[in-house]
Amino acid sequence: MQTNIEDLRSALRDFAAERDWDQFHSPKNLATALAVEAAEILEHFQWLTEEQSRALSGAKRDEVAEELADVLLYLVRLADKLDIDLMAAASGKLLKNAAKYPADKARGRSTKYTEL
Amino acid sequence: MQTNIEDLRSALRDFAAERDWDQFHSPKNLATALAVEAAEILEHFQWLTEEQSRALSGAKRDEVAEELADVLLYLVRLADKLDIDLMAAASGKLLKNAAKYPADKARGRSTKYTEL
Amino acid sequence: MQTNIEDLRSALRDFAAERDWDQFHSPKNLATALAVEAAEILEHFQWLTEEQSRALSGAKRDEVAEELADVLLYLVRLADKLDIDLMAAASGKLLKNAAKYPADKARGRSTKYTEL
Amino acid sequence: MQTNIEDLRSALRDFAAERDWDQFHSPKNLATALAVEAAEILEHFQWLTEEQSRALSGAKRDEVAEELADVLLYLVRLADKLDIDLMAAASGKLLKNAAKYPADKARGRSTKYTEL
Repeated sequence: MQTNIEDLRSALRDFAAERDWDQFHSPKNLATALAVEAAEILEHFQWLTEEQSRALSGAKRDEVAEELADVLLYLVRLADKLDIDLMAAASGKLLKNAAKYPADKARGRSTKYTEL
Repeated sequence: MQTNIEDLRSALRDFAAERDWDQFHSPKNLATALAVEAAEILEHFQWLTEEQSRALSGAKRDEVAEELADVLLYLVRLADKLDIDLMAAASGKLLKNAAKYPADKARGRSTKYTEL
Repeated sequence: MQTNIEDLRSALRDFAAERDWDQFHSPKNLATALAVEAAEILEHFQWLTEEQSRALSGAKRDEVAEELADVLLYLVRLADKLDIDLMAAASGKLLKNAAKYPADKARGRSTKYTEL
Repeated sequence: MQTNIEDLRSALRDFAAERDWDQFHSPKNLATALAVEAAEILEHFQWLTEEQSRALSGAKRDEVAEELADVLLYLVRLADKLDIDLMAAASGKLLKNAAKYPADKARGRSTKYTEL
């Protein structure tokens, strides 16, 4: 059982190597698979209201959890193939977002979210 | 600087709370944002050959890194809102995939990858 | 000005031929571009409520119209490359959907739309 | 059998009205369904090489044709709900693209397609 991104990255490397799948794992293909999996998450929510989406049944949540897992697996794999440090990138982006949306200006009415 | 998923989850909670953005962060909306960001990764690769995608310039790689970060941030936030343990889900899915694609049968010619 | 799918198909063929772009227009690449453009439509709606999405400003609607156009252009081009008759396929699918969702059973509470 | 976009638009209006589905067909939801269907097209191509994508089997092509149909149906429905003239938008965008990518400058090496 992997408990962090680094371990997951190693496990996915081994997984691909054992199956000789690196030939299929070009960044282009992995980015495609990632987008396909993200859409599979979205499919679960497409006809729900926002309220319904906040109250999934246990069975539905288990299905969604598996789709979330697929996205993380491809994301970690893609980052590895591009030699990108995923945690550092996310941490850096969070800092950037904090500067872009100062709390006092963005509170509850950020242009980002409310522009029509 | 966050160095694991758990810390990222906490930081994103604080980030949203400080801006009163929980109202926008329904699972439906977060799943939508995730799919949009995944497509932004894909946009970088859409006209490249697979070979070109393996040899991005440093500048292009930095742009892609930021898109990967966006996907991870929304993924962690969505999992948090659904009360899903993302690392456990990914770890479990990897085990499931190992059973589904035994190395000796899937090697280099997995039906998954070669069916036309 | 093209007024039907057939004319659009011809115009897109000429457009690509004049630029020697057929080399880039593999079905794989066109399917990727189509998904990227579909996500650009979605981006306009991601933080809106359903109600807000029904009441776009004129300026926003013009932006969305251009994204819809992009999707149609790639869709027609992809169908052409695969030698698929798009109108016939859509017409056939509509018949299939009518059989799958009989009006009296699907009215206002189709399982398709309400399953959680 | 519908043979043009206008007829398809009318048929889809009737289809939704007979099932009382307009309540689900907010532009936000339709844009989501459109993106999900576009990803289902892409799924067929994700592990194929570009060459393989140019040579689909008849059975696979039939499956893809049905996904293309789904995209067109949601696209026409979304345009209708937003009161957008889809053919006029596509025709106008084609003109705009012609101005943006002059044939003599874009031939075979358009920056759009080759920037790394």
